[in-house]
Order: sequence, then C-alpha cells, then structure tokens
Amino acid sequence: MGASSAPMGSEDSSHGPHQVVTIGGGFGGLSAVLCLKNAPMGVTLIDRRNFHLFQPLLYQVATGGLSPANIAAPLRAILKNQRNTRILLAEVTDIDVARRRVILGGAEVRYDSLVVATGARHHYFGNDQWEVVAPGLKTVEDATEIRRRILLAFERAEREPDPEERRAWLTFVIVGGGPTGVELAGALGELAHHTLRGNFRAFEPAAARTILVEGTERVLPTYPPQLSTRAAAALVRLGVTPRTGAMVTEVQPDSVTIKIGGRSDRIATHTVLWAAGVKASPLGRILSKATGAALDRAGRVIVGPDLSLPGHPEIFVIGDLAHFSHQTGEPLPGVAPVANQQGRYVATLLKRRLQGGGLSPFRYRDRGNLATIGRAAAVADFGRIRFSGYLAWLAWLFVHLMKLVQFENRLLVFVQWLWNYLTRNRSARLITSSPPPP
Amino acid sequence: MGASSAPMGSEDSSHGPHQVVTIGGGFGGLSAVLCLKNAPMGVTLIDRRNFHLFQPLLYQVATGGLSPANIAAPLRAILKNQRNTRILLAEVTDIDVARRRVILGGAEVRYDSLVVATGARHHYFGNDQWEVVAPGLKTVEDATEIRRRILLAFERAEREPDPEERRAWLTFVIVGGGPTGVELAGALGELAHHTLRGNFRAFEPAAARTILVEGTERVLPTYPPQLSTRAAAALVRLGVTPRTGAMVTEVQPDSVTIKIGGRSDRIATHTVLWAAGVKASPLGRILSKATGAALDRAGRVIVGPDLSLPGHPEIFVIGDLAHFSHQTGEPLPGVAPVANQQGRYVATLLKRRLQGGGLSPFRYRDRGNLATIGRAAAVADFGRIRFSGYLAWLAWLFVHLMKLVQFENRLLVFVQWLWNYLTRNRSARLITSSPPPP
Repeated sequence: MGASSAPMGSEDSSHGPHQVVTIGGGFGGLSAVLCLKNAPMGVTLIDRRNFHLFQPLLYQVATGGLSPANIAAPLRAILKNQRNTRILLAEVTDIDVARRRVILGGAEVRYDSLVVATGARHHYFGNDQWEVVAPGLKTVEDATEIRRRILLAFERAEREPDPEERRAWLTFVIVGGGPTGVELAGALGELAHHTLRGNFRAFEPAAARTILVEGTERVLPTYPPQLSTRAAAALVRLGVTPRTGAMVTEVQPDSVTIKIGGRSDRIATHTVLWAAGVKASPLGRILSKATGAALDRAGRVIVGPDLSLPGHPEIFVIGDLAHFSHQTGEPLPGVAPVANQQGRYVATLLKRRLQGGGLSPFRYRDRGNLATIGRAAAVADFGRIRFSGYLAWLAWLFVHLMKLVQFENRLLVFVQWLWNYLTRNRSARLITSSPPPP
Repeated sequence: MGASSAPMGSEDSSHGPHQVVTIGGGFGGLSAVLCLKNAPMGVTLIDRRNFHLFQPLLYQVATGGLSPANIAAPLRAILKNQRNTRILLAEVTDIDVARRRVILGGAEVRYDSLVVATGARHHYFGNDQWEVVAPGLKTVEDATEIRRRILLAFERAEREPDPEERRAWLTFVIVGGGPTGVELAGALGELAHHTLRGNFRAFEPAAARTILVEGTERVLPTYPPQLSTRAAAALVRLGVTPRTGAMVTEVQPDSVTIKIGGRSDRIATHTVLWAAGVKASPLGRILSKATGAALDRAGRVIVGPDLSLPGHPEIFVIGDLAHFSHQTGEPLPGVAPVANQQGRYVATLLKRRLQGGGLSPFRYRDRGNLATIGRAAAVADFGRIRFSGYLAWLAWLFVHLMKLVQFENRLLVFVQWLWNYLTRNRSARLITSSPPPP
C-alpha cells in the first residue's frame, strides 16, 4: 500500500501507507482532507484551532447577528467517521523539507505528501502599529473584539455629554471597500438604522455614520461597474458614506486621516475596522527558504500548474497562501471557492499518483460572486448574468446556508436570519472579552 | 409627582419624578425594573454588562451545548419600549448614602430609592490562589474559559504519549456537589461518553473520569435524601464518581488533594472546576460601611423584613447579595426565584409608597426545585411531590425554556436541545480565547 509513483518514493513510505499531512483546516485544507476519505492513505490534519470557520459570515458575528459557534464546526465532529484521518491541535513551527517532517512544538510528524493551507492575515502596508486601533476580521476573536468595540461605542455615546465627542463615538470608519468591507458596512448600517432603534435615550442610533474608505474609484472593484454602482446606492440607503479614491494616511485612537486627490481629511472616530489587504501566513516564508520557491509581494507562495512547489512535487500550497496565475496570468482571488477547488484538486492528484497516474493542470471554475449589503439587498455576478436587489439577496442567503458544513448550524443560522428579517433584531449583541470589561 | 410618603422625602425628589436606581441587571434587578414599567418614576438600571444572563444554563455553555448569546439577552433590547427607564453601562465604585448618589467612574447618579442587586462571585474559603487553577462558573467569560480547558484537556490527551499523564488529562475534578456541580458533572459525563465518541484516535473519550467532590454526606444536600440518592446513581451511569464527605485541602496545577475522614487522597488532574461556596459582591461591604448594616460570613447584607436596610428605608438589597432570614430563621438560598420575587416585591413596595401606602413583609414562595443530570435524567422537588427521571427532565426542559427572556433565544435553545437529544452532538465546542490559543 506504499507510494508507487516516482515523486513520492522515500525511505519512509515503505513503513506503511502513504502519509498525507495537511496544515490548516480552512476551506482548502478541509476540502482536501474530506476528499481523501476512504483513500488508502494515512491522513493527518494539523490546525491551531479545533474548528473549521466559515469566514464569509464572520462579519455577522462582528455585528451581533450570529454567534461564533453558528459559523464554526468542530473539526473532530466533521471528520469523526473518517477513520484514515487523525487531527492534531498544534502550531507548526517549521518544516524539514529534506527529512519530510513537519515540526510542532516538541514533536515531529512525518509526511510523504504535504498540503499547506494556512491562509492569510491582514496587511497594514507597513503600518503594523495601526492594528491595535484598527483590528481586522479573520478569526472568531477578531469578530467578538469588533462586536465589543461597535457596541461599546454606542454605550459610550449614551453616557457622553459633549455633542462633538458623542459624534466621534457614533462615527465608524471601515477601511477597504471589497466584499468584506461592503458587507460589514451594510450590517453596521442595519444595526444603527433598525436593530438599535429606540435602544438609547440620549441620541437616535440612526444618527450614527459609517464611512467606507476605498482606494480604487469604486466599491467592490472586482465586480462589474454597474454592480458597484448599485452596491454603493444600497449602502447610502443604510446611512453608509462610501469614500472612494481615498488613501488612509494616519490612524490614531481618536481619528483617521484620509487623502482624496491632493486633499487631506481628518475624521474624528474611535472605531476603525480594517478590511483592506491581506498578508500570507508565515509558513509561506518558511517554505520559500526551505525550497527556494518564490513569494509574491503579499508573501504568497508562487505555485506550479499542479499547485506543487518547483522541484518538490510532494509539497502543495493551496488557498489564500498560494499564488496561482497559470490560468489568466493574474493570481486567483483569495476566496473560498478557489480554496475548495484547489483542495479537491490536490486530493484527486494524490489519489491518482498512488495508482501511478496523473492529472491535467489545475483550472479554477468561477461559478460567480455574491455580496450582500444589509437586508434584502445584494449583488450577484454570474459572468453573463448579473443582477442585484431582492433576488440576489435570496440567492446569497441560499448559497451561504447550503455551504455551512453542519446541518445543525444551517438550521440555527436560518432561524436567526428569519428572526432578523421579521423583527430586525440581532440577539448576539454581547459585549464580552477576557477578562470581562469594567 | 414627587415622593409623597414619609421615608422618601428629600430635597431632591421635588426636582421631578421619583428616581429609582437599580444596580445589577441579573434576575433580581431586572425583575424590579420590569415591574416598574409605566410607573410614574424615573428608572435607571446600571450594569457592568450590556446583557442579562440566564445563569442556570451557564454550565451548558461551559460544556459546548449552547452559545453564550443563547442564554443572554441585551438589556437594551428587553427594555427598549420601557420609556421611563434608561440603562447605563458602568461600574459602580461607591455609594454616597448621605447625598443619595451612586458614584460611577467620573459620574454620579442621584436616587430617591436605591435597589442593589449585584449578586455574588465564588468563594475559595481563604484560598484565593486556587482560583487560577480552579475557575468558577458565574460569567460568560468563566463559561468559555471552562469550555476551553475541558476541550483542550482532551486535545492534550490525544497528543500525550505517556499513559499516566494522559490519564491526568482525562481526569476532571469538580468541587461542590450542589446543583451547579451536579449539572456540570452530568454534562461532562455526557460529553465524554456520548458527544465525543469516535472523535479521537489515541484513546476512547469514555475513559475520561469526572470526580465530584462534596463536603457534606450527599450530593444535592439541599434536596430530600432520596433525590440525592437518585441523582448520585444517574451521575454514576454517566461515569461520574461522587466523593462525598470530602474536603479539598490543596489545589495544584497538576493535582487536587482531598481529605475523606482522616485519609488524604491526591488526584492527578489538570482540570479542576469550582462550584463551591459563594462570596457576596463588594458593594455589600460598601453599603455596610455607609449604613452600618450587618454582613453575614459570606459578605451578604442582612436586610429587614421589607428587604430595606436598617435606618435606610430608601435602600434595598435583593438577590444573592441579600441575607433574608425573617421567614424561616435561615437565609434564603441564592437561586433565581428568590431574586425574581424580591425584585417584584421591592418594585411593588415602591409603587405603593408613592401612593402613600405600604406592603406587608416579604415572603418567599418556594415553587420547587429542579436539577438535571445529563440526558433524560433530572430530579424534581415540589415539596410534597418529588420525582426523578424522564418526567423530571421534561419538567426541567419546559421550565427553563419558558424562563428565557427572549422568544428568539427560546427557539434557538429548543432547536439545539432537540438536536442534542437526537444526535448527542454539541456544536458549540469551540476552543476560543483572547488572544487566540497557540
């Protein structure tokens, strides 16, 4: 049952079944592991977290619409019946490419094939000190921290006697007008205009302003222009002010300075959220040093047509950590469908190799893009078919519900969305942290 | 509209409607505030947290069955339409009894009547250093921290090669055999025996041991003896070992030492949970200093027959912070129904006083007690009617569902309980913290 095809021959593989180690249980890593079910291989999934996170809905946790557990599924629950697979909760500190070992704190795991899918974090374009003031939205902890800041800002406004200072507490700035920034801004607008109506005595929550700062000339720059226009209009209806062609030049605890054209504009605010640029996981650099693989400017690993590294057919990089540009000349976007398809591709290739075969190069099939802007508004881009409004929103709801891994989560999210639709309430509006706030 | 009855006459009350300030939005404080709806008074609710927490279900958050938001309801959502009421998210640092002011960080709130309902925390009987190793279960943060420790212990066991050390990771000690300890132990037994079955490759989760340490001679000592016996039997079926008549003499990061009779027993464990003694909120001491009111040994304020303080008919203490023993000679237990009834009593008294009337002393109506021990097992003590098993469990389910404040939470908890009943799955098994774990 050992490896039979040339690239995987090693002195270790004779000790038992072919060992596949996957690092990262996000969309890419998990889809690879799931696709290896019943394959005659030993599969190890290593992740720092004990759950798979459905990141596309993280902004709903950040705005009090859903609970973290609703969009997270325990990896052990998902893979419970996949008997060839074990899970290790651990942080990978190094990869020994020559000995084919993944190094954890105090332990090593041998691999015959390695799939690295550790994704990306935020990028502050050389201004890492902004992170403390302007958190990004990648983890469950990010989401509950952003929720805490948003809700605390309204609470501070309620207690603030000075009108100018109150206005600063009621001003929210989101940096980055891509899908995450647009969805976050729309949800914030909903929260202020509908959910919190009547909740305060000292001010009207609808007076809150959300400013969406985007560097290019339109929001959702990767979508067709007419959908950007409709998204911007939907945002304005929710009290969001898109500021396009704007660059952030300074972030302070009490303000953000943006530059539009030649003019600088200082916005007084205490709540800045970061939804711009991404920076690849540090494992990219480790792999690059060990194998000589090139990195792009965001730290992503430039992969071959089959997603493996040059000279290392046994090492694959997929998802947000991978720079794959063999199809269009431009790197594929960092979205879930790309990671999913890459995970399944690599798993299929590994199974073929074990039988002595191969697979034609990876090709991404773009099945379309959806972004939502608050209640009953969304934009859909399915290539030739483009639409927006209620129908796009229903499509968005359906697609996202169906993509949730666990049926229980589907049911819970559905109940909460239905409830939110009927009552505009968002019940997960908890200010929590560890230690608890004063 | 000022105060008309003698005890509330003050120079302030002529400035507008009678001002009632309630500190604490738990069962006692919230029920008082809700009962003042439409009363011709100004009501202020001050809490450090922005939500009301349904503490009786906190152990289900700690064991991954429910999400924090499912058992928490935003105070502003609950009181949205109660126009005479405002909410302040703040920590009370002092009470100026002479000037009738509640002191917050940097602000003061005037009161004509004051209701203090700030509850209790855990008590380590003079061994506060144990808290780091053995956290208690009072807040949402406590629950997610306990959940983190329990799940991480199983993860460590999966990676641990040494059988003895693995056994220590799979040993859980709960100190305190009252309702909280019993329910936590039952849920932990369920988790190990059913939910996690097949989740690990290095061991069988059912091998995990839960030891429930109780100082008196039986678990649930406040229940009738025959229900204690049945609860103990139900616990044993879930792999829980009750150790009664046992005193904890030492808590270390890798062990707990208990003394039974004259014999000491050292239990190797990395997970100790504290469900013993409570200690009243620090506001008790502040009130005692300011008014001369006596405190009991747990720091609770000894209140008069109408729940007010001696010489201060305008100050009331209710719920877990109050020591009320006028009814039976013994203080009432620290349970939700006591706090609820006391809150409604004080609100009714305040409304009567405003009309120049009064109210006979407070009397607690004990409508019975329920405790659950895992799936389909519970004990019910309704005075003359006592029962256990499936029927008690259904009664427990129904009562707890109906007591949840928000309909949405009722629905979400119901869905999760139904799901858990059908599949034994608990989907909120997330290891989270801030910062995220390694």
